[in-house]
Amino acid sequence: MFFQVTARDPGSRARRGLLQTRHGSVLTPAFMPVGTQASVKAVEPRDLRDLGYRLILANAYHLLLRPGNKTIAKLGGLHRFMGWDGPILTDSGGFQVFSLADLRNLDDDGVDFASHLDGSRWRLTPELSVEIQRDLGSDLVMPLDDCPPYPAERQRIEESVRRTSAWARRSLEVPLGEGQRRFGILQGGVHPDLRARSASEIASLPFDGYALGGLGVGEPPSLAVAMSHAVVPSLPPDAPRYVMGIGVPRQMLDLITEGIDLFDCVLPTRNARNGTLFTSRGKMNIKRNEYREDSRPVDLDCACDACRNFSRAYLRHLYMSREILAARLNTLHNLTYFASLMRRAREAISDGKLEELRRRPEFDDQAASSVVPTD
Amino acid sequence: MFFQVTARDPGSRARRGLLQTRHGSVLTPAFMPVGTQASVKAVEPRDLRDLGYRLILANAYHLLLRPGNKTIAKLGGLHRFMGWDGPILTDSGGFQVFSLADLRNLDDDGVDFASHLDGSRWRLTPELSVEIQRDLGSDLVMPLDDCPPYPAERQRIEESVRRTSAWARRSLEVPLGEGQRRFGILQGGVHPDLRARSASEIASLPFDGYALGGLGVGEPPSLAVAMSHAVVPSLPPDAPRYVMGIGVPRQMLDLITEGIDLFDCVLPTRNARNGTLFTSRGKMNIKRNEYREDSRPVDLDCACDACRNFSRAYLRHLYMSREILAARLNTLHNLTYFASLMRRAREAISDGKLEELRRRPEFDDQAASSVVPTD
Repeated sequence: MFFQVTARDPGSRARRGLLQTRHGSVLTPAFMPVGTQASVKAVEPRDLRDLGYRLILANAYHLLLRPGNKTIAKLGGLHRFMGWDGPILTDSGGFQVFSLADLRNLDDDGVDFASHLDGSRWRLTPELSVEIQRDLGSDLVMPLDDCPPYPAERQRIEESVRRTSAWARRSLEVPLGEGQRRFGILQGGVHPDLRARSASEIASLPFDGYALGGLGVGEPPSLAVAMSHAVVPSLPPDAPRYVMGIGVPRQMLDLITEGIDLFDCVLPTRNARNGTLFTSRGKMNIKRNEYREDSRPVDLDCACDACRNFSRAYLRHLYMSREILAARLNTLHNLTYFASLMRRAREAISDGKLEELRRRPEFDDQAASSVVPTD
Repeated sequence: MFFQVTARDPGSRARRGLLQTRHGSVLTPAFMPVGTQASVKAVEPRDLRDLGYRLILANAYHLLLRPGNKTIAKLGGLHRFMGWDGPILTDSGGFQVFSLADLRNLDDDGVDFASHLDGSRWRLTPELSVEIQRDLGSDLVMPLDDCPPYPAERQRIEESVRRTSAWARRSLEVPLGEGQRRFGILQGGVHPDLRARSASEIASLPFDGYALGGLGVGEPPSLAVAMSHAVVPSLPPDAPRYVMGIGVPRQMLDLITEGIDLFDCVLPTRNARNGTLFTSRGKMNIKRNEYREDSRPVDLDCACDACRNFSRAYLRHLYMSREILAARLNTLHNLTYFASLMRRAREAISDGKLEELRRRPEFDDQAASSVVPTD
């Protein structure tokens, strides 16, 4: 069985689950660190495993352009290429084509774009996206969707819903590789009726899981929660649900309450490289002068490598001195926080204490921020 | 006992030794990774220990400017600050003042300079340099010396020898912290007679070890070996000998043959970040197109993290994609090579096979290169 609900929160739609792939199992709710270019920036695969991660995300768009899906296939697939033997979810490439590439032409057949790296011209179709992900050999495959920016005219969102459903059907015609599973993606912007329309169309198709796309792109954070609230009842109860691109802790807890199981975001890794650390007392900007001679660890409640071995003063020094080690230690810290947050959420669901967790002051300063698409 | 010779090569001046400090022991010959700003770039202290390093170098100049020696003293000293509990050698700051800072004024009392970071004005004297290193609490302390560039007029080198001896005597007047030991530094450029003069002056002073400064600054590599050949007989046989700033493997083996015990250089770490890897078959430039689909490890004979887990193709991809992990994995690889090289040299001395090691083809492409002063 691909996905099993193993516990439910009596007071909300929240649930715990077990997701099983040929590369191992994942406890949900789960957060996926983003390995854009086949590397979660500044850390090794063994670090991720040590931190408790079992599932990571990689970007088909980036890997298509460099080193190329055919190259990765020749080298034995993405798992072997990047030295990660756990499950991998790959996105379709669509989000980056729409947000990062120079978009030349979009029609019902597919999308023409120019590489952000060298301007070279490419074409992505729903069929090709599945083929790329088959070459990569990821465990969880996402279909190409039509991702409008935020904000966009209602008419553009209607077009996106229609096209995303058509592309979803075409994706399903392309066979997957052995053991691969695929998710359907809902669009609909911040319009509950269009989200509902997208949900009814996509949920009628035989996907193994369902994702909400087009969120975490600058809309007020409460709207992503409202959209999830609107569509979750229309989705199959025994399939995993994934909100793409959202990773603000407070917002993830809200979404877990709405019945969401999976998340991904560059927030912990990118914030780490910018010197923003998540702690049990809220966010900390390690650049601040007040930490210059502060011998305490970043977070007394954290057991990560950075907190066990180094002071705030040293981490500040590394950051101010632009040392590469700053990126690594800060990333290890933030990823520890995110892994721990998901563990706490899972336990809170089992203990009927999710609401209590959600109301903790450490999440107060975490209004959702808009993050750019790649890490 | 601070230093003991434990074995000698019957065919040369090469020797093995044991250097003992309050932070532990070091087998010599030994190479010191450079932790310029209290971090060996891209790796953690525990990585260095895992690779077999016991002794590292840090730069007084950089730490004086940022975060400041007084700050580090307040935080419990450099070992605690950077999370490294093994021995540390600190340089005097002189080399960086002469090569990196904007040098404003040099006289017999000391040197005025402007910070390369922000142009702020500073003054370094032999006394202050020892005080800074006392604040840092390093195990091995270097006195301020007068470092002329290469090439320089003979008259300038004569002045440097005279001033370096005078500064060495003044340094000795400043008490060290508990357990600290200090080295004297020889100057003399590439003039055997001036090196001999410097050696006789410095060797007459009660230092715990002796170093050759002013080498590895662009002179032909054979000259550093020739200078060592000229001065080693004048140095106390029971004190450790250190050639500063040299780390080309072939040249280190030549210097070991001349009786040198210690080395430091940014070569392995900086080359790593530039994609140049040291291997049992010579140097490898990981950027090369021929590695695009090469599934082999960088070096089949290497047991480092990079070689055990990743292919040349993946390391090339990380480098081409400017991933931070490229810096880390390449650094781990090169530092593994350098640690192993010193281990091989020590064993070769014991086995009377140093000459055999020195003649291996893997060192053929390693003409000494000029390296810039900081990492």
